[in-house]
Amino acid sequence: MTILDAYRITREPFYRPVGREIELFEAAYASRMPVMLKGPTGCGKTRFVEHMAWRLGRPLVTVSCHEDMTASDLVGRFLLDAEGTVWHDGPLTLAVREGAICYLDEIVEARQDTTVVIHSLTDDRRILPLEKKNEVVTAHADFQVVISYNPGYQSVLKDLKESTKQRFGALAFAYPSPAVETEIVMREAGVERRMAETLVRIAERSRNLKGHGLEEGASTRMLVNAGLLVARGVPVEEACQVAMVVPITDDPDLREALSGAIAACL
Amino acid sequence: MTILDAYRITREPFYRPVGREIELFEAAYASRMPVMLKGPTGCGKTRFVEHMAWRLGRPLVTVSCHEDMTASDLVGRFLLDAEGTVWHDGPLTLAVREGAICYLDEIVEARQDTTVVIHSLTDDRRILPLEKKNEVVTAHADFQVVISYNPGYQSVLKDLKESTKQRFGALAFAYPSPAVETEIVMREAGVERRMAETLVRIAERSRNLKGHGLEEGASTRMLVNAGLLVARGVPVEEACQVAMVVPITDDPDLREALSGAIAACL
Amino acid sequence: MTILDAYRITREPFYRPVGREIELFEAAYASRMPVMLKGPTGCGKTRFVEHMAWRLGRPLVTVSCHEDMTASDLVGRFLLDAEGTVWHDGPLTLAVREGAICYLDEIVEARQDTTVVIHSLTDDRRILPLEKKNEVVTAHADFQVVISYNPGYQSVLKDLKESTKQRFGALAFAYPSPAVETEIVMREAGVERRMAETLVRIAERSRNLKGHGLEEGASTRMLVNAGLLVARGVPVEEACQVAMVVPITDDPDLREALSGAIAACL
Amino acid sequence: MTILDAYRITREPFYRPVGREIELFEAAYASRMPVMLKGPTGCGKTRFVEHMAWRLGRPLVTVSCHEDMTASDLVGRFLLDAEGTVWHDGPLTLAVREGAICYLDEIVEARQDTTVVIHSLTDDRRILPLEKKNEVVTAHADFQVVISYNPGYQSVLKDLKESTKQRFGALAFAYPSPAVETEIVMREAGVERRMAETLVRIAERSRNLKGHGLEEGASTRMLVNAGLLVARGVPVEEACQVAMVVPITDDPDLREALSGAIAACL
Amino acid sequence: MTILDAYRITREPFYRPVGREIELFEAAYASRMPVMLKGPTGCGKTRFVEHMAWRLGRPLVTVSCHEDMTASDLVGRFLLDAEGTVWHDGPLTLAVREGAICYLDEIVEARQDTTVVIHSLTDDRRILPLEKKNEVVTAHADFQVVISYNPGYQSVLKDLKESTKQRFGALAFAYPSPAVETEIVMREAGVERRMAETLVRIAERSRNLKGHGLEEGASTRMLVNAGLLVARGVPVEEACQVAMVVPITDDPDLREALSGAIAACL
Amino acid sequence: MTILDAYRITREPFYRPVGREIELFEAAYASRMPVMLKGPTGCGKTRFVEHMAWRLGRPLVTVSCHEDMTASDLVGRFLLDAEGTVWHDGPLTLAVREGAICYLDEIVEARQDTTVVIHSLTDDRRILPLEKKNEVVTAHADFQVVISYNPGYQSVLKDLKESTKQRFGALAFAYPSPAVETEIVMREAGVERRMAETLVRIAERSRNLKGHGLEEGASTRMLVNAGLLVARGVPVEEACQVAMVVPITDDPDLREALSGAIAACL
Repeated sequence: MTILDAYRITREPFYRPVGREIELFEAAYASRMPVMLKGPTGCGKTRFVEHMAWRLGRPLVTVSCHEDMTASDLVGRFLLDAEGTVWHDGPLTLAVREGAICYLDEIVEARQDTTVVIHSLTDDRRILPLEKKNEVVTAHADFQVVISYNPGYQSVLKDLKESTKQRFGALAFAYPSPAVETEIVMREAGVERRMAETLVRIAERSRNLKGHGLEEGASTRMLVNAGLLVARGVPVEEACQVAMVVPITDDPDLREALSGAIAACL
Repeated sequence: MTILDAYRITREPFYRPVGREIELFEAAYASRMPVMLKGPTGCGKTRFVEHMAWRLGRPLVTVSCHEDMTASDLVGRFLLDAEGTVWHDGPLTLAVREGAICYLDEIVEARQDTTVVIHSLTDDRRILPLEKKNEVVTAHADFQVVISYNPGYQSVLKDLKESTKQRFGALAFAYPSPAVETEIVMREAGVERRMAETLVRIAERSRNLKGHGLEEGASTRMLVNAGLLVARGVPVEEACQVAMVVPITDDPDLREALSGAIAACL
Repeated sequence: MTILDAYRITREPFYRPVGREIELFEAAYASRMPVMLKGPTGCGKTRFVEHMAWRLGRPLVTVSCHEDMTASDLVGRFLLDAEGTVWHDGPLTLAVREGAICYLDEIVEARQDTTVVIHSLTDDRRILPLEKKNEVVTAHADFQVVISYNPGYQSVLKDLKESTKQRFGALAFAYPSPAVETEIVMREAGVERRMAETLVRIAERSRNLKGHGLEEGASTRMLVNAGLLVARGVPVEEACQVAMVVPITDDPDLREALSGAIAACL
Repeated sequence: MTILDAYRITREPFYRPVGREIELFEAAYASRMPVMLKGPTGCGKTRFVEHMAWRLGRPLVTVSCHEDMTASDLVGRFLLDAEGTVWHDGPLTLAVREGAICYLDEIVEARQDTTVVIHSLTDDRRILPLEKKNEVVTAHADFQVVISYNPGYQSVLKDLKESTKQRFGALAFAYPSPAVETEIVMREAGVERRMAETLVRIAERSRNLKGHGLEEGASTRMLVNAGLLVARGVPVEEACQVAMVVPITDDPDLREALSGAIAACL
Repeated sequence: MTILDAYRITREPFYRPVGREIELFEAAYASRMPVMLKGPTGCGKTRFVEHMAWRLGRPLVTVSCHEDMTASDLVGRFLLDAEGTVWHDGPLTLAVREGAICYLDEIVEARQDTTVVIHSLTDDRRILPLEKKNEVVTAHADFQVVISYNPGYQSVLKDLKESTKQRFGALAFAYPSPAVETEIVMREAGVERRMAETLVRIAERSRNLKGHGLEEGASTRMLVNAGLLVARGVPVEEACQVAMVVPITDDPDLREALSGAIAACL
Repeated sequence: MTILDAYRITREPFYRPVGREIELFEAAYASRMPVMLKGPTGCGKTRFVEHMAWRLGRPLVTVSCHEDMTASDLVGRFLLDAEGTVWHDGPLTLAVREGAICYLDEIVEARQDTTVVIHSLTDDRRILPLEKKNEVVTAHADFQVVISYNPGYQSVLKDLKESTKQRFGALAFAYPSPAVETEIVMREAGVERRMAETLVRIAERSRNLKGHGLEEGASTRMLVNAGLLVARGVPVEEACQVAMVVPITDDPDLREALSGAIAACL
């Protein structure tokens, strides 16, 4: 399995569980049931799947889906070589053959052919037909499909088909509790507890503004960014502007509301 | 016929008939009449065609159709080899030449050229012109076309043309009766009869919510998923959330309605 | 003309004329006038052109048009060979060079470049410029273009251009008379006269439902399918459901109306 | 100039002038002024340009434009050969180099890149830059661009740009006078004067129906088609149906109106 | 610089200045400031840039932009050769390397990637990154970008981005004064002063009709076309019809208005 | 790191800081935090990033994004060589491997696949999966992503996704203060202080017209252009017309308003 060594996670990725997601994922993996991770951006879904891959000792093949991705990008294609055309496995096929966890990040962004390609891998057939080379790959016993899905983004035009959704066990994610989030910020940004607590309070206030013109509030990732700037000597108010206000809105009223939320927590 | 060995089904796929679908399929196959399987997702159409292929001793070439699939993906194409371009049969052509059952899953998802390609195979001509290589392949005596079609999905924009529909004999599928579904869940998920009966009752309740904001109720496949989690020690209510609620809706009202349906059956 | 041997029709295709279509086609062919066959699906246009090709002793090159077909699919393209790029005639060019009848089925489905490609072949020039290889092919003296056209399908968006239509002599087709249709069903399905008469009566009733939610009634082809199932022992009512009701509608009212029409004829 | 021999018109194409179009074309050609032929379908624009090419002793390269045609289809492209990529002149470049008349039929159908490609050939520069091979081809002294344009077809979406239109001298075409048209039908269809006169009368009546649901009336080409069928023994009323009614309309009222027009002239 | 010899202008292109455009262009070129030429079609923008290239002794690489042009068409691409893929400079890269004036005619017609490609060439960086070959070409000291832009054509959908516009010094062009235009027509069409004066008067009248259904009036180019026909013996009224009326409108009222304008000037 | 030598900035790019942007950028770079530069066109964002790259001693790989750019344009692709297909790093991959700053200019113009490609590089993973060659590139310790973003341009259709925005620390840019801008114009255009002050006053007036029909006012870049023309002897009023009026509007009222603003400042 040397070809997948690049995809092995050798150090434990820091992950603080929010609920029973680790146990449920393990139960699903035991049946190799496909898993869907649902939740807002920057709340830790990618980190979670990395953690589980490490915990289960499986290589992790991550694919960031986008609307120009084709089935061939996942499955593979023929490339021209000095001796003619040679088949080249795509990342999904690689994971199928070698028994990795294949994580399709934001799968609804992909075109339908991507989604359909996993159908025969997510029912009891567990096969991947490579139609272009008339090969049917039977999945390695350790192979599992994991997808992420942000409910806040879905529109009528871009959603998973019913026939796709119902193949998955789904775990719902949300931002961590203040205590957990404080711990994460301390650890990831290298700031002291008090500063981390301040940043978490600011995040909570900003999340309350969601719906009042803000698509989403500050994510855990943005808190960490603010903390990193603080740790480099940037004053906390300026750090919050750079990491949590300027990136997400240009509306003067919203900027003022966010700045007020920051000032109120200092 | 070694090339099709990968497509042979060697063990009997478990299938519990709901009505006379086995007899009708056999009658259609006797005339090599093209068959359309109609019904909701996850009710067993794919399993049925696998069962019939096994029963009739025919290899089964399955193609999951999608909107980026081209006629060439079905029929074949020239690939560049060390000695120049070499024709490469697609899955349909393979099935036509070697006498397999070719199952085009969710054919309405495909572009029209896919659909049109099967026209000359689904009337008395039974030929497949490979226009790119000026070859006309006469279908093997055992070849048959089977397509699936989910009536609930069709929109005005995406439907089969009249001239395609009328070439097929059609079998209507629905979810199995409670008794049959219980048996399926017991067998596939490895749970006891009582647990299976509970899950089937939950599914029935969820199917009654269809139309009240739910595109489709819980499929048999979702019941099996819930059962698999239960068999791994997940409490039944949590297993139903993971397998039957979270994957299909993010609407708080619907989630509550589904949770109520689950609680009422426990 | 060995290359066209695959396209020769060696046995007389069964065709029961409805009017003077055979004489008119022969008169058109005598001047090599392009011919347009108009009429609903499944009424026998394809069979007619096969019959005429056999009767006139001409090979028949049939192309099922679709919206992803390009001019190159018809005319030909360069393919890469061990010695470089080699021109490869498409089916139209083949027919033009060798003197076949080229039948473009449902030509309005094709993109405009397909349609325009036949312009210089359907006026007195009778040439096909292969622009990609700077060759002008003069049509073989026996070459003729035939197209089919289903008036019921045409929308404003998809219609032949005036400058295309007026190049053709056109023959209008309809479903055959009851007597003729009975004979066809007997012959093609292998059922007795009485059964065939019953099926034809059912078809007539279903055709009267056209416009009341049904795009088209049962075609002759569907009658034959029903007959084939009956010949295999399927009860006639069930056979009609499989061949004439389930394939064309999912509307409960229409299904009931059709079922009523069937019951009334038994 | 052997490469253009295939494009030489060796026999005089029959053309009966309607006005001073021959003299005006000759005056335009004397300055190599680009010429636009305007008029309805089937009135003889293509025949006219063939006649002029013959009269001026120039080869004629005709390109039927369509919406999938690219600039490369006109100008040329690199093709892969045994010794690497080799440039291959397109039909326009061929005409530019060798001094042919290049006739772009229905140019508005083409994408804009086609139109723009001729700009540097239709002002005093008379050059064709082959950007892909960094060559600037100076037009042969005898080269001329001719385009056709059917005013009845143009929509807001598909029209020539002002900067294209104003480069051309334009000749307006219409259907010929009855006397001229009679002569054409006699000659082309091989029918007697009386029959030709009858057909011309029918055409005039049908042209009066234009605007009452008919896009265009019967063209000269359609009269010739009717005449050809008559010459093969088809009764005149049936021949008119096949050549002048059925091809252009499926509307029962219009068909009746046209049939009435035919009956009135017999 | 032999590769650019084909792009050198060896004879002085006739150009009659309308205002201070020559001096302003020279001042802009002295700083290698990018220049935008604004004005209606056929007023002499292309001729002006040819004149300036000749006057400044620079080769001129002209590219007629269109909506199917890609960045690769400008910048270059890899082509397959006997020894593998070989980079091939596009016209822009050629001009950048060798110090030509690169004239992008009607740049708004191009896709955005064309426009963006010139950004790093039109600020103080003066570099062209060839991303596909990881080369950064520093512009030759003599290189300059010139674009043309017809304000009358721009729609909301198709306009230059602010960030493009503000990189250019812009010169506004209009039709020349009657005296200048008369001189141009005499010289280019070879007609006498009086005839030229008549044609210029007609043009002025036609330009007054602009806005009353006419997109633009007669351009200088059209006057020259009319003059050329007159010089070949075509009567002036007929010549004006061919060169100035029929090409630009099919509206009977407008044709009459234009014909009246012509008659009034004779 | 020889391959990146072409991307090194060897001379200090002139940059006059407006606020604390240099310190904030340095703090962000210390954590390799991705940075977003926000602000109107021509205010100095590109110059700033060049300055920072020089200051930090990092090569700078700049990519001007546009809507036809694909992920492969950024990441790389296989090219055919004499010995078969050879992988060719794109500019992003090059920067990732070698530790450059990768500046994606106007990233919202790009298709989503471009944006998604940077996700795994802009969280703590700092990896770039090259799916087409099954390689996972770990970013060089010095690598950083910088993007620019013009808030005035964004529409609903074209905006960064929340999940992208929140990965960045953002710095807001505006036009410099009059004193700073005067200094910039003096230095870049080579004009005296008084002339520079005049031009800056004109710019301020024009910026006040923003919103009254003007998308943006005169940028610093346009002032420099006007100054350059003045330095070449063009009268200041004419220079302002060429550099600041004609390029940005064709509306007579706006032109008059702008001309008034110029006249008022002289």
